[in-house]
Amino acid sequence: MRENTTRPPVLPVAPTGGRLRPLGLDEVRITGGFWARRRHTNATATLGHCRDWMERVGWTGNFRAAAEGRIHRDRRGREFADSEIYKLLEAMAWEAGSGGAATTLDAESAMLTEAVASAQEPDGYLNTAFGRPGQQPRYSDLEWGHELYCHGHLIQAGVAQARARGEGELTKIARRAADHICATFGRGGIEGVCGHPGIETALVELARLTGEQRYLDQAALFVDRRGHQALADIEFGRAYYQDDVPVRDATVLRGHAVRALYLAAGAVDVAVETGDDALLAAVVRQWEAAVARRTYLTGGMGSHHRDESFGDDFVLPPDRAYSETCAAVASVMLSWRLLLATGEPRFADLAERTLFNVVATSPSADGRAFFYANTLHRRTRGAVPAADADSPRAESSLRAPWFAVSCCPTNVARTLAQLPAYLATVDDHGVQLHQYADAEIATSLAGGQGVALRVRTDYPSGGTVAVRVVRSPDRPWTLSLRVPEWAAGATASLVGPDGTRSAVPPGTAEVTRVFRPGDEVRLELPVTPRWVVADPRVDAVRGTVAVQRGPLVYCAESVDLPDGREVDAVRVDPSAEPEDGPGDAGGTVVVAGEIGATPERSDDAAWPYEPLDRPTARAADRTGIVLVPYHSWANRGPSTMRVWLPTAEPRTTEP
Amino acid sequence: MRENTTRPPVLPVAPTGGRLRPLGLDEVRITGGFWARRRHTNATATLGHCRDWMERVGWTGNFRAAAEGRIHRDRRGREFADSEIYKLLEAMAWEAGSGGAATTLDAESAMLTEAVASAQEPDGYLNTAFGRPGQQPRYSDLEWGHELYCHGHLIQAGVAQARARGEGELTKIARRAADHICATFGRGGIEGVCGHPGIETALVELARLTGEQRYLDQAALFVDRRGHQALADIEFGRAYYQDDVPVRDATVLRGHAVRALYLAAGAVDVAVETGDDALLAAVVRQWEAAVARRTYLTGGMGSHHRDESFGDDFVLPPDRAYSETCAAVASVMLSWRLLLATGEPRFADLAERTLFNVVATSPSADGRAFFYANTLHRRTRGAVPAADADSPRAESSLRAPWFAVSCCPTNVARTLAQLPAYLATVDDHGVQLHQYADAEIATSLAGGQGVALRVRTDYPSGGTVAVRVVRSPDRPWTLSLRVPEWAAGATASLVGPDGTRSAVPPGTAEVTRVFRPGDEVRLELPVTPRWVVADPRVDAVRGTVAVQRGPLVYCAESVDLPDGREVDAVRVDPSAEPEDGPGDAGGTVVVAGEIGATPERSDDAAWPYEPLDRPTARAADRTGIVLVPYHSWANRGPSTMRVWLPTAEPRTTEP
Repeated sequence: MRENTTRPPVLPVAPTGGRLRPLGLDEVRITGGFWARRRHTNATATLGHCRDWMERVGWTGNFRAAAEGRIHRDRRGREFADSEIYKLLEAMAWEAGSGGAATTLDAESAMLTEAVASAQEPDGYLNTAFGRPGQQPRYSDLEWGHELYCHGHLIQAGVAQARARGEGELTKIARRAADHICATFGRGGIEGVCGHPGIETALVELARLTGEQRYLDQAALFVDRRGHQALADIEFGRAYYQDDVPVRDATVLRGHAVRALYLAAGAVDVAVETGDDALLAAVVRQWEAAVARRTYLTGGMGSHHRDESFGDDFVLPPDRAYSETCAAVASVMLSWRLLLATGEPRFADLAERTLFNVVATSPSADGRAFFYANTLHRRTRGAVPAADADSPRAESSLRAPWFAVSCCPTNVARTLAQLPAYLATVDDHGVQLHQYADAEIATSLAGGQGVALRVRTDYPSGGTVAVRVVRSPDRPWTLSLRVPEWAAGATASLVGPDGTRSAVPPGTAEVTRVFRPGDEVRLELPVTPRWVVADPRVDAVRGTVAVQRGPLVYCAESVDLPDGREVDAVRVDPSAEPEDGPGDAGGTVVVAGEIGATPERSDDAAWPYEPLDRPTARAADRTGIVLVPYHSWANRGPSTMRVWLPTAEPRTTEP
Repeated sequence: MRENTTRPPVLPVAPTGGRLRPLGLDEVRITGGFWARRRHTNATATLGHCRDWMERVGWTGNFRAAAEGRIHRDRRGREFADSEIYKLLEAMAWEAGSGGAATTLDAESAMLTEAVASAQEPDGYLNTAFGRPGQQPRYSDLEWGHELYCHGHLIQAGVAQARARGEGELTKIARRAADHICATFGRGGIEGVCGHPGIETALVELARLTGEQRYLDQAALFVDRRGHQALADIEFGRAYYQDDVPVRDATVLRGHAVRALYLAAGAVDVAVETGDDALLAAVVRQWEAAVARRTYLTGGMGSHHRDESFGDDFVLPPDRAYSETCAAVASVMLSWRLLLATGEPRFADLAERTLFNVVATSPSADGRAFFYANTLHRRTRGAVPAADADSPRAESSLRAPWFAVSCCPTNVARTLAQLPAYLATVDDHGVQLHQYADAEIATSLAGGQGVALRVRTDYPSGGTVAVRVVRSPDRPWTLSLRVPEWAAGATASLVGPDGTRSAVPPGTAEVTRVFRPGDEVRLELPVTPRWVVADPRVDAVRGTVAVQRGPLVYCAESVDLPDGREVDAVRVDPSAEPEDGPGDAGGTVVVAGEIGATPERSDDAAWPYEPLDRPTARAADRTGIVLVPYHSWANRGPSTMRVWLPTAEPRTTEP
């Protein structure tokens, strides 16, 4: 843990203002349970998997080809391939930073950094797709070129290295790149923005690292320029890259989901550093509208495959959910920034839902295959993708080892690597716990007095979170625990060190006292499975119900049905409560319902629409139907799956 | 009408085999009613609108630019822009051919033909996007280049001119183009196919016109080559252009809907001309599966915006329906060919549904704006598109005067121009009526004896179709009338010349006798409005009902709701039968239901999903809700609209 050091904490996001102060990867350690297992797989399998794939498909080689003057001939991958190397470098840095002692990751990172360094041009510009003889000129295609986007990920990687290991070569490369961008796009320079946001958060973080105002100014300039038709109109419309309305005037997140969320995160960073409350309020308003009308039960965002965009309000078809993994990563980035700025638990609520049901869903159990899109309803059994070929398609089927557009694997990797930093914060009053995992926390309160906590829980399988005080100053302070929104309608309890038990509603539960080492505060959350229904305006799920247990969304998967039946034959009876199923608590859930035979093509009517009064014969015995956590589906071979389950009555025909 | 002429009838499709013989545009005339109005608008507004737009956006100019050697510099429009001129020429030919006497259309056609002729190369190749200095080489991009597709529409136009006016310059151009294609893609030539089918139907029709076997052989070759990975794999997969499975092995229509349907139509043409019953059976099987599982209530096909493709079975979201107008045109082409080949009324049933609910929906009342996609649920009021600017987007909102990809307007134009040919056929036993309109029919039965019929009806407003015999041979023959599938569950009656009335089920009703001039057969169809429900596997419309009246699908449109309310606030009571509304019969329909207030953003819950047991307050007074024919929507300014209406109970929570 973090002790006797003068180096600043290893922080993914380090605002100088806002309500809460985040803790570094050297202050919080996840020691067991759901996320520890995933972080172990990420460190031991996913990072190497990404490194090897990018070497193999030639994306790493692009940097060497650029240095050797043959890139115009030999370049591999899409225009944004460089950014995947940077995201992997960022993930390696956070992973190393949460470990402490030097690891082989540092050596691998150094080798990749050397390749990257070789391709940087004297003025700091670094992109293997533009600007060299035989290539398109620099910044000649701001709409689609992704040059600033790639520079943004480079800078994020440089910041991560500095925070985790102190300033090194990668940080110097990032500074040179940032200086080039300020010189090129600053006042008096190109009046443009990038078709894909991302540079904004990066520049603010570099300003936080270095204290250099000009990086913050440039980020603010990019945020302010957008929405004034800075980019060309395109088939998808300017809303696709949020260039339709200025950030501070927009009322909802729209267009390409990842772009919208990265931009919003950058706007929050700018707002916090510049004290721009109006800008912060605008982003909060957009977040509220998107969460209330444009978000799937899983926390996933984006319902259009065509342009990877948010749909209109309440257009949330489960079987056409795009819910891109990268949009979930971006949503967690945004919610975390809003939590730090405002201290409001609703932002941690969405982050939790998104982490457990989208971010945790993307990687396979072995960490070597990924979902790009995360559908909520799979109607056909997908074919197993070739283990040695990348997938040209981002469609939801089985996880694929790699994609032609492979933004998601490295994005999951860097998110899991920095995850411990999302668990807790401190403020003048004490310590706040936002996400629950078996963990050790050691930091200092305002005034520098040390505090250490030991969190014991098997959340989300179990609902009990026990927080034991290991070290505490000899003065009163407040321990705050988030009571998740999903606990609404059930009773959560807080048990204080003195054994007093009190019911706590969703929001924040607090204990203020002079804590002694050994004191324990226990939060008991009602993680019994329960039915969930959607707002009637979500037309696509009318007449269906879903099951949630704690923060986990459940689904029916065909591999758990008898006789090779498919999920579309399932009808459930919501008048009976769902119950924990066989196996470990928090594993399966069982609901009452029917499993009809899946009709064959030969059973079809010639035309699937008929007069209302025509009788429809369908009968099946009542039985128990096993559901599994959504994040765990598609790890047992090709299957069909659905989250929203039709109720036993096939149709609503009577008012 | 057609008399004392030796020229063959003006036939859009002229198979030499199959069950039924089609009638030409000179044998059937639509004299009044629904389609007469639309054909008048097409002839007097749409044809000129398309001609003027293509002159203005430079697509016509491309031919002159090619002839003058400046096309590499000056070309305008997408790679397939040439085909729009050809489709307009085809439409003009059918329109002229159904008129009889020479019109200004002939002069306009001659001018366009002159421009086209100037761009044809000595070997017959004709495409303004490829092959000239400074352009990509010919056939260097079969996946996306559309060169064979464009040649196909050129050939169709040449055939139309020959049938309508006798062989002229355009026919000669088409023959030269076809000869070039046979020389280039025949055995021993390029082993390729076009990414976009269309050449197949064209070559078969040219073979039928000229009797030249080689055109038929080339079409058969294109049909047989497809499905053997003749084209590259792409992001959408080879199913996008039906190159995943050979035509005769495929079990369902899939991929890009227009491509799938054009190819299927070409396969039917080849099967009929070569007596290939196995190929015909394969297409029938694919049609059956697509109609049973992948077709909207309107007859529209294609639910994916991303790749304009059919979705998986039963993925038919109303609010994301793509239902491209061109797919409807292609579906009518396919169904017509299958009807001629088999004589089965089910193919005329789908054609009717598609004509009234998609083809008739695309053009605005004035014939100068069009839907490209035809959604079944519009949630937001669209902005009025600029009358003088084309739309870069194919999204469903208000109709637009033109599109960057403007395949639909000219496709609607050529379909309406040839519509009379879809009304009736003859065979050895007599005359068959397939589509109902106020019309005059004069042809000859097998043996050459003349027969003439006068059809009087205000269908689809009214259900009575009166067929009066004007001329008849002095021997028994059979008059067959289609009883539409939509009449199922109600009673249709046939009244013979002797006044005998008999109930007739959906399918075919027949009267066989020695008809005398003045004899009348009356078909009485039950066009009272009725509720329709969907197969429960169409998840997206669970808990909703729709209204159909005769072949017309109805919808709720916000302009008919009080207090500026939106359609998503409508709940209907299907226990009460829908009734004809105010205004002309067959205009509006009224259903019982509630119109709640449309919630404001401020009324939203923070999160649109909630525990099942949480009460949801929603109450509104029962009232009458006016519905209008779906084809007529969006002619009264920006509005919201929906076809599938939720029942008054907002949720199904009890089994």
